Amino acid sequence: MRLQPIDLQKIKIQDPFWTKHVKLVGEAIIPYQWDAMNDRIPDAEPSHCLENFAVAAGRKKGEFYGAVFQDTDIAKWLEAVGFSLAAEKNPELEKTADEVIDLIAEAQQEDGYLDTYFIIKEPDKRWKNLREGHELYTAGHMMEAATAYYQGTGKKKFLGVVEKLADLLCDTFGSEDGKIHGYPGHQEVEIGLIKLFQVTGKRKYLDLAKYFIDARGTGENYFLQEISRGDSGNIFPELSDYRPEYSQSDRPVREQEAAEGHAVRAVYMYSAMADLAYEYQDEELMAACKRLWNNIVQRQMYITGGIGASGILERFTVDYDLPNDCNYAESCASIGLAMFGIRMANITKDASYIDTVERALYNTVLAGIALDGKSFFYVNPLEVWPDNCMERTSKEHVKPTRQKWFGVACCPPNIARILASMGQYIYSVGETALYVHLFISNEVCIEMETGEVKVSLETKFPFENLVRIKVSHVPDGGMTLAVRIPEYAGMYQMTAKGQLLEYKEEKGYAYLALAQDADISISFEAPAKFVRANPKVRADCGKTAVVKGPLVYCLEEIDNGKNLAELYVDTEKEIQEVPSELFGGITELVLQGKRMEESAWDEKVLYGEHPVKLSDVTLKAIPYAYWNNRGMGEMAVWVKELISG
Amino acid sequence: MRLQPIDLQKIKIQDPFWTKHVKLVGEAIIPYQWDAMNDRIPDAEPSHCLENFAVAAGRKKGEFYGAVFQDTDIAKWLEAVGFSLAAEKNPELEKTADEVIDLIAEAQQEDGYLDTYFIIKEPDKRWKNLREGHELYTAGHMMEAATAYYQGTGKKKFLGVVEKLADLLCDTFGSEDGKIHGYPGHQEVEIGLIKLFQVTGKRKYLDLAKYFIDARGTGENYFLQEISRGDSGNIFPELSDYRPEYSQSDRPVREQEAAEGHAVRAVYMYSAMADLAYEYQDEELMAACKRLWNNIVQRQMYITGGIGASGILERFTVDYDLPNDCNYAESCASIGLAMFGIRMANITKDASYIDTVERALYNTVLAGIALDGKSFFYVNPLEVWPDNCMERTSKEHVKPTRQKWFGVACCPPNIARILASMGQYIYSVGETALYVHLFISNEVCIEMETGEVKVSLETKFPFENLVRIKVSHVPDGGMTLAVRIPEYAGMYQMTAKGQLLEYKEEKGYAYLALAQDADISISFEAPAKFVRANPKVRADCGKTAVVKGPLVYCLEEIDNGKNLAELYVDTEKEIQEVPSELFGGITELVLQGKRMEESAWDEKVLYGEHPVKLSDVTLKAIPYAYWNNRGMGEMAVWVKELISG
Repeated sequence: MRLQPIDLQKIKIQDPFWTKHVKLVGEAIIPYQWDAMNDRIPDAEPSHCLENFAVAAGRKKGEFYGAVFQDTDIAKWLEAVGFSLAAEKNPELEKTADEVIDLIAEAQQEDGYLDTYFIIKEPDKRWKNLREGHELYTAGHMMEAATAYYQGTGKKKFLGVVEKLADLLCDTFGSEDGKIHGYPGHQEVEIGLIKLFQVTGKRKYLDLAKYFIDARGTGENYFLQEISRGDSGNIFPELSDYRPEYSQSDRPVREQEAAEGHAVRAVYMYSAMADLAYEYQDEELMAACKRLWNNIVQRQMYITGGIGASGILERFTVDYDLPNDCNYAESCASIGLAMFGIRMANITKDASYIDTVERALYNTVLAGIALDGKSFFYVNPLEVWPDNCMERTSKEHVKPTRQKWFGVACCPPNIARILASMGQYIYSVGETALYVHLFISNEVCIEMETGEVKVSLETKFPFENLVRIKVSHVPDGGMTLAVRIPEYAGMYQMTAKGQLLEYKEEKGYAYLALAQDADISISFEAPAKFVRANPKVRADCGKTAVVKGPLVYCLEEIDNGKNLAELYVDTEKEIQEVPSELFGGITELVLQGKRMEESAWDEKVLYGEHPVKLSDVTLKAIPYAYWNNRGMGEMAVWVKELISG
Repeated sequence: MRLQPIDLQKIKIQDPFWTKHVKLVGEAIIPYQWDAMNDRIPDAEPSHCLENFAVAAGRKKGEFYGAVFQDTDIAKWLEAVGFSLAAEKNPELEKTADEVIDLIAEAQQEDGYLDTYFIIKEPDKRWKNLREGHELYTAGHMMEAATAYYQGTGKKKFLGVVEKLADLLCDTFGSEDGKIHGYPGHQEVEIGLIKLFQVTGKRKYLDLAKYFIDARGTGENYFLQEISRGDSGNIFPELSDYRPEYSQSDRPVREQEAAEGHAVRAVYMYSAMADLAYEYQDEELMAACKRLWNNIVQRQMYITGGIGASGILERFTVDYDLPNDCNYAESCASIGLAMFGIRMANITKDASYIDTVERALYNTVLAGIALDGKSFFYVNPLEVWPDNCMERTSKEHVKPTRQKWFGVACCPPNIARILASMGQYIYSVGETALYVHLFISNEVCIEMETGEVKVSLETKFPFENLVRIKVSHVPDGGMTLAVRIPEYAGMYQMTAKGQLLEYKEEKGYAYLALAQDADISISFEAPAKFVRANPKVRADCGKTAVVKGPLVYCLEEIDNGKNLAELYVDTEKEIQEVPSELFGGITELVLQGKRMEESAWDEKVLYGEHPVKLSDVTLKAIPYAYWNNRGMGEMAVWVKELISG
């Protein structure tokens, strides 16, 4: 049996590290995104998202405005609202959301169709351009939103809307004669259909998700067929020369050896594949999931959990190609990686998946949003020199500072929904076992088959590595507590009442049998340390990064001066961990190193025989998650190290 | 008085280093490009260039095919043919060229207009889209070709064609009422008009060139006006959001502080500015030329003489932004830099300009063409890992191997014309002085005001630094020999009959008065050495390059194994200079260094605490000019150096 997610209504997160982020969902992101969708953010690109629904519903006259997938902004917002209402009631917000759902329901067509771009702008192109049209992608987000909203509020109206939409999809797509033998250009509907199945129990939704995955990349490529039919149009100029590998449709998913193409599409698809592999006990599909996961984490992932090395087409490139200053590493791609990872962990009960989920969450996902919740990174470079991040150059996509809101706004609401669903990354539930994946303070009631268990977790992780877990209402017959042993943890110990406890270790979890209520302390060592990349990663050769537990650190110009490329770290010297009040309280890391002196260089000389002159410097590193929260400047994760030979 | 170019008919180049390149013009490039323009190269993109002229001339029915500036292929070819015929008669080639000129003359319109794209495809758009239409750019290349052809053959027909075209331009453009107050989107016609003035003596051509330069960037931007008029169309999608700095038209040229925008446009414009500054004794314009030159060579030039740091829009970015693996550094831009530099040297008699010209010629220009003359680089990276130079990624523009022929084929014929006109880079002529800029073996007759002087220059430079110059027919009253002292030269000596000669040194030239015929030997030291970049060049911090004289060296995978990023050079150890038979005879450089060992790394581990393990390696470097002549592989100019602190 796969592990199950917890009910988000039953968990209260109150954590010294995470609360400031999680509370942004309700206090900043949801209201800010609401303003954005209503075009009320000064100096930001208009969204027009609600306007489009009003036009589609016939409430207003007007044109469609925005990207072909503009509807997903509202879906992701409603999904975040659903998660948020699960955590905390908010009648005013719920009322607003209910009104939006009424609007969506009004915009839905008689037959269940729901996509304002095609309803308003190109009604005759419905389902004709699956590779670019994003109708199925949008449908998937609607389904995810409706299930979250149902789970957060118990209200079924939105669920009804998406069931009608899903029924239309079931009637429209499939292998049967008369149906469209196609699949989505941007995967996502598979996840939505699976969630809808999980909530409604209607197997046909699961079967349709399986159809989309099974059909993908088989026979003559569906998207190339579409193009050769000639009536599908071309929405994105950069896709006029369509390559099926871009959308992971160049071969059947079971034959895919390495992650390739658009990174978000890839990980959304892999997430669905994991669910389906479990639901249908499909070992071949599971093997593909493991292979693709391993390819990513062993060869194509940044140390920050970012994926997608190429700015152009936001895609994977080749193994070990991980440039730091011109990559994409979209926030949404890391969110997708976390979604894929939690599914794999729940299926395999292997904590190594969580090591990567944690890496993505503590670094790229958090870096994607400012500490005030009002500006966002799409692209997450590991090295920035703001001067050369210029418009209309090869670094145009790299923004040296977070942006207010994007016309194409997938990342901000995606960050909101993952922050709002953190509880399901902290715990999973087995038949008689409670799995603790992440160390985030909370109180939770867990529904286990044997009864409801109350758990309180208290920690100052990641800056202190002591976790106290109190379990009460342990059912008769006992239960098992399975606590993750992170890959970076040394001296892992479990104690109760000062006594060392024996635990069984399996695939990265410490299994502890509890016969009765308990108060367990878990401690481990996770000192700051220097890490290096596999030398096959050419971009990082000769460099080191400094990490502490799951946190990757970086140097910023504000702490270390201009031109971080001149710096060398002395990895023979100790890293000092220094408590700091910055960013609500962190551990800063202080390093010793050298700086190449510019003094020898006349400003008229570009190349010369000048010897390298070094001077001692003390360097300060802060968590990558918090970079660019103190103004714009240079930043680097990987720094050269002194290598004497 | 400015120095003058020599007559190419009077020079015979026979040089151990250069002859193999120069002879490619006649033996390979000109015939190969002829085949290309006739669409006879298998597997290469068709050019259709001659076909377009046949259609425009009414000899054939058909459509225009190719880029809007496709005509320039034929112009650059004819220019190279002109230079080549100056060097060596070739009746068959001349006959072919005459037929092409007949075709061009037939395609020319009654009023002098000549541009097959607009004649065939958009006759109503003539002069309406100066920013993208390339009509003036094409006209400029026609003028350059016609003057070269006239100088190479004495034939005036082509000159007549372009005079008629130039007359049309004079009637069409200018500050007077009723004329178009515009200027070219891609500068080049200015150079063409100036050359036409120099050959015909017609001052109005010079004045029109001055008009184009003076009008540029003044008042309301002409190109933005064009766009707002709404009838100019949009040829290049990437220019739909037009930024005037792209074409150096955001402000008057005299106010431009730094090189910016499209690199080829920039240096073509600066070349014309230098000519005009001299012709009109315009000190302000000359100051702008010096400022822009200095900005390039002190802040925006690769060590190879490449310019243009951004792949997107092939442009300059900001000072010190010189990435090695994703740059553009177009061959044509380095050719333009050489054109600009020789003009500045001729005006200022300052040899430092030639140091840069030589850098561009010996490195980027030569690298632009394969040793067999049949394949070409547009883009000249300083670091290549072929695996990640993938289509449809951020490195799509970087080709790890030379390409056969390009649909947009500016570089190959541009390389041909500069190789064919090398004589004018070797020498310039003053009133009573002969300037020797470059050390390339040749025999030449120089027309000086005081009579014809015969010179023979013999050298094995750049691999040996001994230059023997025999001067005969020294006129009564004597003459001056001014021989460049390269910036890299040590122990510079001039001797005759074993006796050290006294020379006067001024701005990088050794001035030697000759009263009679002489046999002078010049020797200097230019051992291989390590150089570094100004630390403001972030991409090169911690790295070294190895050079010998004007040659920049590089490491290739074929000599040094896979993954050049793992290598460190020990700059404390000596560089060995080793003669080699490779590439027709070179000096290889052998370096000592270390390689990071991969053996410690499990292929499943991407990040870890593994210590850096180094092993000794001996490295071999070859001239950058010759990289990728032994198959595809990694290449790097800048290599990490061991820095112990």
